Amino acid sequence: MLDAQWFSEAQTSSGTAFSLKITRKLHEEQSEFQFLEIYETEQFGNLMVIDGCTMVSTRDNFFYHEMMSHPVLFTHPNPKRVWIIGGGDCGTLREVLKHPGVEQAVQIDIDERVTRLAEIYFPELCESNNDPRADLKFIDGIKWVKDAAPNSVDIIIVDSTDPVGPAEGLFCADFYKDCFNALSENGIVVQQSESALLHMKILKEMRDEMQAGGFTHLQTVFFPQCIYPSGWWSATMASKQDLSKFREADAANKGFDTVYYNNDIHKASLAMPEFFKKAFA
Amino acid sequence: MLDAQWFSEAQTSSGTAFSLKITRKLHEEQSEFQFLEIYETEQFGNLMVIDGCTMVSTRDNFFYHEMMSHPVLFTHPNPKRVWIIGGGDCGTLREVLKHPGVEQAVQIDIDERVTRLAEIYFPELCESNNDPRADLKFIDGIKWVKDAAPNSVDIIIVDSTDPVGPAEGLFCADFYKDCFNALSENGIVVQQSESALLHMKILKEMRDEMQAGGFTHLQTVFFPQCIYPSGWWSATMASKQDLSKFREADAANKGFDTVYYNNDIHKASLAMPEFFKKAFA
Repeated sequence: MLDAQWFSEAQTSSGTAFSLKITRKLHEEQSEFQFLEIYETEQFGNLMVIDGCTMVSTRDNFFYHEMMSHPVLFTHPNPKRVWIIGGGDCGTLREVLKHPGVEQAVQIDIDERVTRLAEIYFPELCESNNDPRADLKFIDGIKWVKDAAPNSVDIIIVDSTDPVGPAEGLFCADFYKDCFNALSENGIVVQQSESALLHMKILKEMRDEMQAGGFTHLQTVFFPQCIYPSGWWSATMASKQDLSKFREADAANKGFDTVYYNNDIHKASLAMPEFFKKAFA
Repeated sequence: MLDAQWFSEAQTSSGTAFSLKITRKLHEEQSEFQFLEIYETEQFGNLMVIDGCTMVSTRDNFFYHEMMSHPVLFTHPNPKRVWIIGGGDCGTLREVLKHPGVEQAVQIDIDERVTRLAEIYFPELCESNNDPRADLKFIDGIKWVKDAAPNSVDIIIVDSTDPVGPAEGLFCADFYKDCFNALSENGIVVQQSESALLHMKILKEMRDEMQAGGFTHLQTVFFPQCIYPSGWWSATMASKQDLSKFREADAANKGFDTVYYNNDIHKASLAMPEFFKKAFA
């Protein structure tokens, strides 16, 4: 049994829980959209919790933010215009802006309070918020993509919460169809796609919706993410073009620091577990 | 807060805890060596706990058992004689015996009660216990290796608990030196080596001890393991020979079923995260 010295996220659907030992609660508020909490943990730095789910910790967020950004950016031949739907903690934005070829990165999160809290409690994730290429919007990402003109963007990163609550509409064919229309010829959308151990149903539905949205090529990448259910997470890329190759030489000479990602890890993240291969054969 | 409906393993050293929702406790006993518990969980099948640490669940043990066995067996050119030190739940033994070239697999676990409980609560892991090539011994693995004649074995798999209690001596140079002497020319020892996110100190010390034991080539493999701390686990191979190549064609045509492992996953498991590469450069 764990007492009040721990913050626990219990996931009823999988019968698993992950907990971090906390030293104190730093903040809580009900924003217009979500219930936001910030804890100071004993060994993971600060922790942001949204509607009871662990979102980001100081210590282990590098896995997620790097793997949501660098594989897709090194897969596209020449990404200049990037949109981040969600991503209010600004960690994905920081990784995207490490790529010198990116000319514009627009972060569209419906909840401005997430970003305002990240600026206070996760300042290192926000260190590129004032980059002249960064544009932070606090509006509805679904509407933003729907209203976009064709060929507006090269990469759309859907850095969302789980497919319940405000993020539900981000896992639907209508949204992917709008992404398809907004993307350029070689455009790619990538979305966090839960745990292949616990959430194969969500993964399968999401891949079906992506195909219903018009995308012919899908590629799921796998990576560790300690604070998310099962500790093993995934992201799925969808494109009009082949996704099995990437700019290996550029990744090998990336010229910026990462903690987890490198050229070998990129290749490794594409390997499909045997059960996953069978499920999507 | 989690109540008595959950079994939690809280790891003080990392300030993390992992929990499974349980429906009932099936068994508990103090063996000569350890405190053993078996739970029925809501969604992970049965769970074995040793001295408070989650050891094996029905649902997710395939990651660990496959990754402790197949990478090392497909790295050695022609493994015939395999020893498993620890491994009392018999899951590693089952994977090893999937290789038709293996002529003898000796499992040496000090605690016979672990195997007797596995036979009752994890019968699928014990399905090869009566294979004529299997030899189950319930004696001290450290002494077994120390007393072995040179060139007695091709592969030693150290499938142990954490480096505290009965397993502590399995992480020391003296033990690795004895492994070195017992192994054949192309011989390889592989040992579970904890989480690279949480336990880099143990990993570093273990690699140092392996080198002090005489091994010149080391290779760490990485894989998901939901019920172990951080959900991201590793095993480290040590040999007198190069470990960077493996029998890819044989792995691609393995001719037996696995859930996680395949040729691509083998390659992927060798990729070193950026921080790991820097730590061991």
